[in-house]
Amino acid sequence: MTNLRHCVSRMFYPSPVFPSGARLSDITCKSQKLMLETGLIRQSSPGTFHLLPFAVKALEKLSCLIDTEMENIGGQKVAMPSVGSASLWKKSSRWTTMGAELFKLQDRHNTEFCLSPTHEEAVTDIIAAETTLTPRNFPIRLYQVTTKFRDEPRPRYGLLRGREFLMKDMYTFDTSLDAARDTYQAVCGAYHRIFQKLGLQVIQAVGDSGLIGGDKSHEFILPADVGEDTIHHCPKCGLAANTETSPGESPTCPQNLCKPSCEVTQKKGIEVGHTFLLGQKYSEVFDASFTDQFKKKRNCEMGCYGLGVSRILAAAIEVLSSDQEVRWPRVIAPYQVCIIPPKEGSKESELLRLAEQIYDEIVATTPHLKGDVLLDDRLSQTIGRRLKDSQKIGHPTIVIVGKQALSDPAKFELHCTETNTTKFVTKSELFNYLKTIPIL
Amino acid sequence: MTNLRHCVSRMFYPSPVFPSGARLSDITCKSQKLMLETGLIRQSSPGTFHLLPFAVKALEKLSCLIDTEMENIGGQKVAMPSVGSASLWKKSSRWTTMGAELFKLQDRHNTEFCLSPTHEEAVTDIIAAETTLTPRNFPIRLYQVTTKFRDEPRPRYGLLRGREFLMKDMYTFDTSLDAARDTYQAVCGAYHRIFQKLGLQVIQAVGDSGLIGGDKSHEFILPADVGEDTIHHCPKCGLAANTETSPGESPTCPQNLCKPSCEVTQKKGIEVGHTFLLGQKYSEVFDASFTDQFKKKRNCEMGCYGLGVSRILAAAIEVLSSDQEVRWPRVIAPYQVCIIPPKEGSKESELLRLAEQIYDEIVATTPHLKGDVLLDDRLSQTIGRRLKDSQKIGHPTIVIVGKQALSDPAKFELHCTETNTTKFVTKSELFNYLKTIPIL
Repeated sequence: MTNLRHCVSRMFYPSPVFPSGARLSDITCKSQKLMLETGLIRQSSPGTFHLLPFAVKALEKLSCLIDTEMENIGGQKVAMPSVGSASLWKKSSRWTTMGAELFKLQDRHNTEFCLSPTHEEAVTDIIAAETTLTPRNFPIRLYQVTTKFRDEPRPRYGLLRGREFLMKDMYTFDTSLDAARDTYQAVCGAYHRIFQKLGLQVIQAVGDSGLIGGDKSHEFILPADVGEDTIHHCPKCGLAANTETSPGESPTCPQNLCKPSCEVTQKKGIEVGHTFLLGQKYSEVFDASFTDQFKKKRNCEMGCYGLGVSRILAAAIEVLSSDQEVRWPRVIAPYQVCIIPPKEGSKESELLRLAEQIYDEIVATTPHLKGDVLLDDRLSQTIGRRLKDSQKIGHPTIVIVGKQALSDPAKFELHCTETNTTKFVTKSELFNYLKTIPIL
Repeated sequence: MTNLRHCVSRMFYPSPVFPSGARLSDITCKSQKLMLETGLIRQSSPGTFHLLPFAVKALEKLSCLIDTEMENIGGQKVAMPSVGSASLWKKSSRWTTMGAELFKLQDRHNTEFCLSPTHEEAVTDIIAAETTLTPRNFPIRLYQVTTKFRDEPRPRYGLLRGREFLMKDMYTFDTSLDAARDTYQAVCGAYHRIFQKLGLQVIQAVGDSGLIGGDKSHEFILPADVGEDTIHHCPKCGLAANTETSPGESPTCPQNLCKPSCEVTQKKGIEVGHTFLLGQKYSEVFDASFTDQFKKKRNCEMGCYGLGVSRILAAAIEVLSSDQEVRWPRVIAPYQVCIIPPKEGSKESELLRLAEQIYDEIVATTPHLKGDVLLDDRLSQTIGRRLKDSQKIGHPTIVIVGKQALSDPAKFELHCTETNTTKFVTKSELFNYLKTIPIL
């Protein structure tokens, strides 16, 4: 058992100051600063980052939450390679139209490849190779959660605008435009449920189709001052549109919804998701088709859908945190509970064993918290110092096993980080509280 | 509930023949042939593959199994970028010594990068940036499960020797060579437990340090005719060494272990893991150090450890399968149970509803099988045809809800794919059997 406790003393817990290689001028926003300060990330090169243990734990929880919602709408997970064939990208013309954003490389035989920023070409080619598709094989909804690449001219804002990032991308194939619209609604619904579970107030705005192309698109925007997108938004009727969609003019709300007048304002935000109804743009080029009930060959109607997974993590930290302390969407916090026993040598040191017992009992009696409990056993440090660290990194629940735990009945100091409240509770009150922690 | 059943009719189940783009000459071994035939993979370019839904499910289970064992030895998960800085690789000289195997590229500002095949440089640089390390911060054991890249001159054998592959790599830092040797033993122990759980008879052979460098290394070899490594192996005393380590000469067993004579033979095998005791090779170059109890700065003692995750999947299929049917290490089979109801229109069609009930009851009463049950509801096909498909893709347990399910008591046809046995069982016998299925 002992070996399996998650103990801070046995962890690589990067120093809470900027590492020697970091320059202050590289810091361009709050989430980046906090994520460096708390050792969640380290910069590798401009726009590429090492994700350290706490960040990886949070990202894996976020991926798992996304998997659940994708599976609920019939999504099947695939993984397409990062190294993409130039021939496919030339066929769609994007080898040229993507311009300098596309990282290009050659293998030892001088064959050209790119580092894929997205996979419309690849996935359409997979479906095109299936020559026996009939309506009963549809809808086809494939998605992946993989690393994507974009040669950003000026990478900035940490994980918000990097050159290498984790993205969930879904590609859908239907037999009619109506069916593709149903798929579009299903995916948008799943996206809203994901942001709702994360507690993020994301606005679905009419978007710009840009280089992806297609008939219809929406952007999912998380309002934030640091955001690089601007939307027109009316909270009364829900109207929302990217300013790129209607440059220079302010869109007006449908009259009957906003009497006597609409309240359109401009808002800055971070694009955390994007949906496109593609139609036959790619299926036509790559010949992704099926045989209909009249034995006629027809092109598939496609959609593509993206969520910036590492970007959502950073964006959530950007909007939820204070200038000094990280706050997470509760369900993806790396650890739900941090237990702090007293400093070594202090008269309460016998309480370390009690803290370990509490740890083991939580894991035994509250199985949904297995892997979510952390023991901060850096006993050379005061409780106060470790409490400050815990609050800075934003563990949602902090339990201090201090001298009141020696009283009869024993009392534990319970800090709820979200509500910034502290109270002393008995052991049974503590365990009742822990049972209420909502996790994935 | 209905929406959440995993039903073959609603899945992208690639055609069980070679896709139109595949050429017979690309097929170089059994696992590659079977994985193409059963739609587990599709080739993207020579040496890069699309992983389709069943393969992704198996790989995620394998990654999860590896995570557990890495966590048990104190491993913490990180994720370092694929795009590696040329400056780091030049510092270690491997920018040149890796030769043409290293994929190189430039960004729009003509800065040089590589697609990392391994991360000794990157991880040592992370630790070097930590300037306050003391012995109490050690051991540090960081690992990741990420995509790696190698510009193979002749990619072949499908996932066994690709240009882009999934790898688990661990990097360890200790304060003394003795401590580093303990770490080395701990990781080798974890590797043996992983292969044991997979049911793979892997041999730990003394290895060749090659371009990674260092003092000591082992290769974990899965014997297979298609393997590209050759080892000397004596089953009597356990002696095992890569022939590269002692070219031209056959090593002899320690005399006292192999009386009257040793039985060294040569074996071909697939390298599925590799361990290196690196010493200070990288910590010296990058200045990854700590301050010892005498306030003296000392270099860390390092180790690095790799498991080819996608290669293990393919290697397991290579050695466990017949020429016609895929067999998986039981614990990572994409689905544990496949239920086959009768063909539509046949007189047992009322049994479809019963099959669905059985599905729902399994999930409700056997929670550890949630997500592991598949309903093959392609009702236009005969039971026989679907049974053949199920056996080809190797679902470990197949349950046919056929006409005997209308008897009193109802009987179900239970196929155990591993033992190639079939029997008729009652519902309670079926559920008792399902409870015994060992999963992760």
